[in-house]
Amino acid sequence: MNNSTFLHHISNHISLTGKEEKLLLSKVRSREFLKGQVVAHEGEISKFINFVISGSLKSFHMDNKGNEHILAFAIEDWWIGDLGSFATQKPADYTIQCIENCELAQLSYEDLQILYTEIPQLERFFRIVIQKAYVFFQRRIIDNLSLTAKEKYLNFIKQYPQFEQRVPQYMIASYLGFTPEFLSKIRKERSIKRSKS
Amino acid sequence: MNNSTFLHHISNHISLTGKEEKLLLSKVRSREFLKGQVVAHEGEISKFINFVISGSLKSFHMDNKGNEHILAFAIEDWWIGDLGSFATQKPADYTIQCIENCELAQLSYEDLQILYTEIPQLERFFRIVIQKAYVFFQRRIIDNLSLTAKEKYLNFIKQYPQFEQRVPQYMIASYLGFTPEFLSKIRKERSIKRSKS
Repeated sequence: MNNSTFLHHISNHISLTGKEEKLLLSKVRSREFLKGQVVAHEGEISKFINFVISGSLKSFHMDNKGNEHILAFAIEDWWIGDLGSFATQKPADYTIQCIENCELAQLSYEDLQILYTEIPQLERFFRIVIQKAYVFFQRRIIDNLSLTAKEKYLNFIKQYPQFEQRVPQYMIASYLGFTPEFLSKIRKERSIKRSKS
Repeated sequence: MNNSTFLHHISNHISLTGKEEKLLLSKVRSREFLKGQVVAHEGEISKFINFVISGSLKSFHMDNKGNEHILAFAIEDWWIGDLGSFATQKPADYTIQCIENCELAQLSYEDLQILYTEIPQLERFFRIVIQKAYVFFQRRIIDNLSLTAKEKYLNFIKQYPQFEQRVPQYMIASYLGFTPEFLSKIRKERSIKRSKS
């Protein structure tokens, strides 16, 4: 693993000593996954949280009709996992799956509890990371409640232009709560409008 | 303010010394608000986060058509605020308003930064509180994407039976993304079904 990517991300919020960095890295497990591979399964306890060194992933919930509902995407420098399952060590509501080949830096629940004791500043680090993720969800809930379907889509591609290139359209449709056909209709209308203007 | 309620809540996650408790309480501002009173306005910077000693509140976003979209409710022992605005000290997306008369314990942004330095354990406390709030939102997003309207309502009253008694129905409708008429229809169907069984 390229340690500098991970340590640089950590240093965005806290300053660790060389000794602390060494201890942290000793607990981080680097793993590679192939496109389509499942990193963590719904119904199983999430043992790891995952920091994305490279690649892209999705977390999704399967409803009882077998439909996949995408909760989140993640690319380089993002964290992904079922935080509810990880924090409580109860079965997960979400599956985490690779959209592209991925390299992940993983921290286990047990190791993170040790690290919280040994490097209390990590409490601050994760407080800030989780706070950002919370605000992101807060924004998403309000967008879901207050925007039209078209506004939701335009908002999404404005906020995350990189996803439009890297994530298949049917996944973006699932994330936005649309059918693939409906998203295709919105995109078509938009491209007609753009080519006319 | 009844300090013991607040300190008991803190002690759910961390153990403070007498000196730390005293310092923390010296920064907490106790305030009373009347039913309907606005605690923090959308568009203004959220200076405080609020812990509910008594009463109930809602946070909502007003869309450009003047419709109110409720993001969250809060009752005793819950925190409420626009965490995005509070954390970044940028204008709020949400208004926080009392549903009942309220007593709140408020912490200002500046004081919390001082407290994080003086009592680093508070990083842990808020990491856990925000983590729980994040998981709550995670659940809500998936419910919105994967449940039918009726399932959403039944889920809500099962999870938060206290809200059904204390919060007007039109607010519950707004929270669930329904019109009040639609919620009324679901409730009617349910009561017919229950009286038949």
